[in-house]
Amino acid sequence: MNKDTKFLIIGLGLMGGSYAYALSKRGYHVSALDINPDATTYAKKHHIIEAGAVFDEELIHQADVVFFGLYPNTMIEWIQSYHHHFKSGCLISDVAGVKCSIVEQCQALLKEDDVEFIASHPMAGKEVSGVTYANDEMFRQANFIITPTDANTKEAIDFLKTFAQELEFANISILTPQKHDEMIGYVSQLTHAIAISLMNANDNKELVHYTGDSFRDLTRIARINEKLWSELFLLNKENLIREIDDFEAALNILKHALIKQDEECLQSLMIQSTTRRKWFDK
Amino acid sequence: MNKDTKFLIIGLGLMGGSYAYALSKRGYHVSALDINPDATTYAKKHHIIEAGAVFDEELIHQADVVFFGLYPNTMIEWIQSYHHHFKSGCLISDVAGVKCSIVEQCQALLKEDDVEFIASHPMAGKEVSGVTYANDEMFRQANFIITPTDANTKEAIDFLKTFAQELEFANISILTPQKHDEMIGYVSQLTHAIAISLMNANDNKELVHYTGDSFRDLTRIARINEKLWSELFLLNKENLIREIDDFEAALNILKHALIKQDEECLQSLMIQSTTRRKWFDK
Repeated sequence: MNKDTKFLIIGLGLMGGSYAYALSKRGYHVSALDINPDATTYAKKHHIIEAGAVFDEELIHQADVVFFGLYPNTMIEWIQSYHHHFKSGCLISDVAGVKCSIVEQCQALLKEDDVEFIASHPMAGKEVSGVTYANDEMFRQANFIITPTDANTKEAIDFLKTFAQELEFANISILTPQKHDEMIGYVSQLTHAIAISLMNANDNKELVHYTGDSFRDLTRIARINEKLWSELFLLNKENLIREIDDFEAALNILKHALIKQDEECLQSLMIQSTTRRKWFDK
Repeated sequence: MNKDTKFLIIGLGLMGGSYAYALSKRGYHVSALDINPDATTYAKKHHIIEAGAVFDEELIHQADVVFFGLYPNTMIEWIQSYHHHFKSGCLISDVAGVKCSIVEQCQALLKEDDVEFIASHPMAGKEVSGVTYANDEMFRQANFIITPTDANTKEAIDFLKTFAQELEFANISILTPQKHDEMIGYVSQLTHAIAISLMNANDNKELVHYTGDSFRDLTRIARINEKLWSELFLLNKENLIREIDDFEAALNILKHALIKQDEECLQSLMIQSTTRRKWFDK
């Protein structure tokens, strides 16, 4: 990775746009493809990219490094259709929030090409979308996770480490796609499933007059992009269903302590949650 | 309520201490009783109260207005033992987070005395306890809820309204004890039960490396005072159990959509939660 490296972002949304913004700011060459011409027009105007188009064979063929900022299934379709345009030796990564269901599929689709697909997941985001919100602040507190398979090289892993350091991610980790998806099923997807269900459990609009910060904190992420998240949930459904079952089991222990008027059990559950939550203090 | 009004706080913890702090700052006469002599000593030294003791018949007898800052069951025991010390015409209120299980009981215990018990609930708090954290900032964003019964007078309701205005609560409402406890079962108690159970559902300490703000937001209140909250949960258990059941039903709709690979249903749940959450934006 040096200042001659040519980056191509395919899918110039919030994440793709923020990668483009962060790389351009640091003096790298960045171009982009997006189905929406307004996105690339905006990005060119604001010096987030040097060149952009809806589709451009030449831009694809010039790229040394490609990052997909598309939804997972759209990325797979894109690779199926256009993989023969990639330059020999090209490195390809993504931003998808699930890994098992896409990594091997992408690598299989690219096995005839002289390119390397190595998956990664920037655990950053905001409750907005689109390149107009592009920024690199959100990376500074965030984890960058690389999920290599046996098909990946040490060079590709090292490249992504350098990339994440350059973009100032707070923490860089390496996980198998399986471990990644188990982890994300709990800390991210279960968390969103709970927020959605808590919000949907009661339709009393009057409650807004009585809510405090706790309720607002627990439901902030109930404002959610339904197209992206329904796709992410379904692509990791086995892990997410298991996490929902485990969570419901924990909640049922609490419910049965209430039914049995078991104050000691309730207290021990609260002591346990207090102890565990302290691990997660920043 | 005027500057000659003598306030007595019984139970000088975070809430009682913050009432004392806010009243003294505004020039009112405030004294306090607390089982822990360090609490009243600290409060006197920092001009949060004028006088304090573990127990003092004279302080009780002088008080025009009494606020209980004790846990609900402890307050009931206190009233049972010492109610004959209250001055004739005295107004008594509390800070308890549940109402049905205590209001009528307190009013019954005091029915032979010439005093009025009117319940109220300042919906404020912090994840700390004790008078050393006393402050009045936390009232500025908070709801103050008065829960009168047929036994209460308009004068008592008006007094509490004036009190809450003086302490600069953001919003003052009047609810029946029943409506209060239904509301609190959802916006506060269910929310805490979910946070506790989410934290308890997984004991993988390594996850701390991969958690983002969403998980931290949803589990912040899993750090909880187990003695107070187990008591509050049990005093409102019918409402809380019903809310847990309703929440689990909502979560199971989501789970079954995953099992059936029903993307349309998942999206409609997310659209619903997004719409509802917008009601709660500040």
